[in-house]
Amino acid sequence: MGSPVHRVSLGDTWSRREHPDIESERRVRSFNVERLTNILDRGVQNTVLRREVESIVHENPVFSLKNNYFMTQNERYENALRKRFHIQTIAQRLGWLPDGSELTYAYRALSGDVALSSSGVFMNALRSLGSEEQIAKWSPLCKNLQIITTYAQTELGHGTYLQGLETEATYDTATQEFVIHSPTMTAAKWWSGDMGRSATHALVLAPLICSGARQGMHAFIVPIRSLQDHTPLPGITVGDIGPKMDLENIDNGFLLLDHVRVPRENMLSRFAQVLPDGTYIKLGMAQSNYLGMVVTRVRVLLTGILPFLQKACVIALRYSVIRRQSRLQNSEPEAKILDYQTQQQKLLPQLAMSYAFHFTAVSLLEFFHHSYDEILSKDFSLLPELHALSTGMKAMMSDLCTQGTEACRRACGGHGYSKLSGLPSLVTQVTASCTFEGENTVLYLQVARFLVKSYLQAQASPGSTPQKPLPQSVAYLATPVLARCPAQKAADFLCPELYTAAWAHAAARLTGDAAHHLQTLTQSGADQQEAWNQTAIIQLQAAKAHCYYFTVKSFTEALGKLDKEPAIQQVLQRLCDLFALHSILTNSGDFLHDGFLSGVQVDMARKAYLDLLLLIRKDAILLTDAFDFTDQCLNSALGCYDGNVYGRLFQWARESPSNTQENPAYEKYIRPLLQSWRSKL
Amino acid sequence: MGSPVHRVSLGDTWSRREHPDIESERRVRSFNVERLTNILDRGVQNTVLRREVESIVHENPVFSLKNNYFMTQNERYENALRKRFHIQTIAQRLGWLPDGSELTYAYRALSGDVALSSSGVFMNALRSLGSEEQIAKWSPLCKNLQIITTYAQTELGHGTYLQGLETEATYDTATQEFVIHSPTMTAAKWWSGDMGRSATHALVLAPLICSGARQGMHAFIVPIRSLQDHTPLPGITVGDIGPKMDLENIDNGFLLLDHVRVPRENMLSRFAQVLPDGTYIKLGMAQSNYLGMVVTRVRVLLTGILPFLQKACVIALRYSVIRRQSRLQNSEPEAKILDYQTQQQKLLPQLAMSYAFHFTAVSLLEFFHHSYDEILSKDFSLLPELHALSTGMKAMMSDLCTQGTEACRRACGGHGYSKLSGLPSLVTQVTASCTFEGENTVLYLQVARFLVKSYLQAQASPGSTPQKPLPQSVAYLATPVLARCPAQKAADFLCPELYTAAWAHAAARLTGDAAHHLQTLTQSGADQQEAWNQTAIIQLQAAKAHCYYFTVKSFTEALGKLDKEPAIQQVLQRLCDLFALHSILTNSGDFLHDGFLSGVQVDMARKAYLDLLLLIRKDAILLTDAFDFTDQCLNSALGCYDGNVYGRLFQWARESPSNTQENPAYEKYIRPLLQSWRSKL
Repeated sequence: MGSPVHRVSLGDTWSRREHPDIESERRVRSFNVERLTNILDRGVQNTVLRREVESIVHENPVFSLKNNYFMTQNERYENALRKRFHIQTIAQRLGWLPDGSELTYAYRALSGDVALSSSGVFMNALRSLGSEEQIAKWSPLCKNLQIITTYAQTELGHGTYLQGLETEATYDTATQEFVIHSPTMTAAKWWSGDMGRSATHALVLAPLICSGARQGMHAFIVPIRSLQDHTPLPGITVGDIGPKMDLENIDNGFLLLDHVRVPRENMLSRFAQVLPDGTYIKLGMAQSNYLGMVVTRVRVLLTGILPFLQKACVIALRYSVIRRQSRLQNSEPEAKILDYQTQQQKLLPQLAMSYAFHFTAVSLLEFFHHSYDEILSKDFSLLPELHALSTGMKAMMSDLCTQGTEACRRACGGHGYSKLSGLPSLVTQVTASCTFEGENTVLYLQVARFLVKSYLQAQASPGSTPQKPLPQSVAYLATPVLARCPAQKAADFLCPELYTAAWAHAAARLTGDAAHHLQTLTQSGADQQEAWNQTAIIQLQAAKAHCYYFTVKSFTEALGKLDKEPAIQQVLQRLCDLFALHSILTNSGDFLHDGFLSGVQVDMARKAYLDLLLLIRKDAILLTDAFDFTDQCLNSALGCYDGNVYGRLFQWARESPSNTQENPAYEKYIRPLLQSWRSKL
Repeated sequence: MGSPVHRVSLGDTWSRREHPDIESERRVRSFNVERLTNILDRGVQNTVLRREVESIVHENPVFSLKNNYFMTQNERYENALRKRFHIQTIAQRLGWLPDGSELTYAYRALSGDVALSSSGVFMNALRSLGSEEQIAKWSPLCKNLQIITTYAQTELGHGTYLQGLETEATYDTATQEFVIHSPTMTAAKWWSGDMGRSATHALVLAPLICSGARQGMHAFIVPIRSLQDHTPLPGITVGDIGPKMDLENIDNGFLLLDHVRVPRENMLSRFAQVLPDGTYIKLGMAQSNYLGMVVTRVRVLLTGILPFLQKACVIALRYSVIRRQSRLQNSEPEAKILDYQTQQQKLLPQLAMSYAFHFTAVSLLEFFHHSYDEILSKDFSLLPELHALSTGMKAMMSDLCTQGTEACRRACGGHGYSKLSGLPSLVTQVTASCTFEGENTVLYLQVARFLVKSYLQAQASPGSTPQKPLPQSVAYLATPVLARCPAQKAADFLCPELYTAAWAHAAARLTGDAAHHLQTLTQSGADQQEAWNQTAIIQLQAAKAHCYYFTVKSFTEALGKLDKEPAIQQVLQRLCDLFALHSILTNSGDFLHDGFLSGVQVDMARKAYLDLLLLIRKDAILLTDAFDFTDQCLNSALGCYDGNVYGRLFQWARESPSNTQENPAYEKYIRPLLQSWRSKL
């Protein structure tokens, strides 16, 4: 059969042969795994290129992740910078472009364990908010690492409420400069990536004060460290924010600015300009300056959120066909734990979600590419929908990927608590995505506002198509939806139209509820903000239902395009069905509430769901193989391709510093404790 | 007003005065906080003693937790041993007894960050399984640290399925010794606390082979390291299992035994004896040898699981009255985030749960004390119920405390990701409790078996009281329950009888469903184990419903005893109501499914729930103060009593090694990167 070399190059003796319990899982193949990998890679040429890059990365010991689990924060940081340095050297030697796929694949091979990745966030903002001249000037400096850039928006005391930012940028007509200042300690920029010990330039987001008037948040390029000797420039106080739950490869930093002056040209000016005399010219809409964040949110889905869940699935599922526990039949040996219904229930919905979110994120990325250029040319008609979809999917994917990764970790029992399993660090990394790039609750509420607004727009012209048609993703708010689910047997639930309509129904009902509650409250005299606050919980529900709707719809549409691959289409269809039914069963109250589903129908849906678990279980290992993560990038004693779990875990444990370093505590504390009683004899 | 000294002794300048935003929360007191603290401590004399111990601990700098967030695994271990050594010295000087409350309070003050705590697990097993002579011999050695003990049950390849343990203890009549042996690598004992680098004696759990017959799991005291020089004894291979998600203060270890011999007296023999000639005498029932685990599970609730959630509530709620974000009214300053419905929804159910689980765990502890002595005297009638309640509550509390602690962490936004907030380490510690002392899914399934068995027993004598009455906690399975919820308005839901009956109804219905599914499957020819497996998901639901029932019932009963404290009773009643309604709303599908609740009633329950949030919000800070955790033991920049969040976070960040240590990466990597382009000019 021949496993591709990139899978089995950890270099230990076990890798040479597969454990029979995992080999048997791969023996019968209902679909072509390699072809599914190509589909996930979005083209066979991408698979080829990715593996080339992975080979280059993995053959160089400087890129090994193996000691990561033993390092301090400072060691992780230095290590990540070393990797970045060597990647840069290789890129120059081989002519990899700064925006090219090779670097993306190299970072994937390194599981993102490199420094200086905030330049991506800086570039997203520069491209979105900068004029063509500014892009031409700063983009090559940033990409070639002639400067090290960071994005400085969040402050110690201020996060998602951007109007509350305290840092001020005041235009000084006399010198044609902006004076950027942190008036208080809570105005300190906080969390900026690569800023703690590395960056030379920060893109500082601050409200602009111009000719005495406040003009809202704008972006300013501010040099913060000397390019000669790296010391902080005058007026700059900069440092690291200290130890974190994870992401220690990144030196997140703080920044205080004491009346720091930058030239007029350093304000990004695609959507707003300040003329030399202080005249302010607005070229965009109020939300324009948030565009950089929209871009980052879309891009982070496939690279910064989803891979954690996918890897957790790979590790937990491979372990679950090696681990045996208890008996399912007295005459047989202990059963693989994946043959237990409870283990299938823990893991297979996560696997289904990994695929569902992949195809949804790809579809969102396509929508983004389609709308981004129009927005840059100041046609903002698609911005509200793009904003709602990107915030909603960022929130839902980070929430559910975090939950799912932890579920995979716990499904490995005690071994999932060992760092050597690789799972703890996946959990502690992915959970950061619930707060970075916008805290999820706030994001969901933004989606809800879009839903309520669209709903009211649809209601304004009842019975007919509204004058201005609703954006496509919320068109269901205008059209009557099924009032009752028509399913009469379990198999009826294996139908994308049915479960997509079910989620549309739930989202429309909850949005309607939220809108009516809002109206009732404002009509009885409540303040607008207060009314939003008092209906926030139902708004959250509506937003989540909408995101489920969008996911099942996107996954279904993507599957429709795979009709030349019927075997793959079939296995993915099962995953789509499982994702949808799992989401409905987990939220069954939302469907039972108004009688859309009856209790009997919920039982039918559960039966369909349980039958799917058994079908998908057969393909589970192949479906994780298709993600094609290398053993090195998984960095897991439990999750290697060969399934040799126990020997590897034992060996890695024995090689840990807790076994290889001296134990000074014995002489200092243990011996005195053990012998203290002797003195009393 | 005067804050007690133990609250405000971090020694920094902020501690001297409370932030006005937290001071205002404490100004109006609807109940006596100190009195509630006394109730939580189970007596005013306990509060006094606890604070005495805390003062002794906190005045000694050796016990500071402050640098924990910067340490490696080996440093954490050495540090924890140093603390244990000094605690032991103090205990000897002040005459603290090994079993006394002082040591318990000292460990609480240290947030459990000490070494050698596995002696507690060893002692639980010794007292449960040992004969009186064995207890008399080994107990003082263990308590005085003349030997360092550990409990060795789990193996590298075997966890909850104890019949699968591979380690063998074979009785050798010739020498009257047991030969204890690990026949394979997967037989290695794994995870034993304090074993990696410390323990001298292990209580090894292994199937006994005696006169050629296998007699099930028994416990053997095995010396593993020399008391002279601490080297592993002949036949022993022992070491540390490597880095973990947390709990690095504990050196969890592995152990391989190569035909190690221990004398006949070293098998714990309360419930089984081996006579010199190899005759095996059974004195207990099959489950007797699991009794040690039952004890540990009951004890761990109040000391090893619940405090994490309570501390997370304290930190997140204090932060939430300091943090301000966005506006609720245009004319006012930014609002405290605790005034947002979404923040209340995140935190107040966790606070309610902290109290609910406290009173439930206390009630379980009382039941345990009542039944333990009877079991030791070989009256096993209460064992099945004690086993079911302790496994169920361990599973539910660890599950929900883990979820709740993470919810608190995320409710603090980005700052909750900083280790300095204290929250990440609470999460990474408490999540271990979902797998230790029995993996939760397996535990829930054990509860379900007890439920189904009780249900079938009740069914066997329908319409009348069964001949052998059901254990009290499952009596509801025999008596007819409400078929429909009678509530007609929101306020009707503020009724313990109503929501207790609701959970009893759900638990009985789900147990009945599970039993009927099981019967159908076995009647159609399915193997017994296979039938259990195919109904596992519904069994899990039944077990969880039963645990909710037990919790609301226990909390309600505890409140009934507080009638001399009406103000406290009132505020706790609200927490009980909130816990119950939150649990019902979160699982609304379980109640809508058979029409027990209608959609309209769910909306009523939600209204009652939202009203409770507003009431409890007013007392939230006082309710967290009542837990009376010292600032030192919280070790959180966000959670100190004084509310001076930002200054402390900033200062702790600046004192982190990432700011105080040199940055060698600049010369090695950053400078060469920045200057590489110059060579090309």
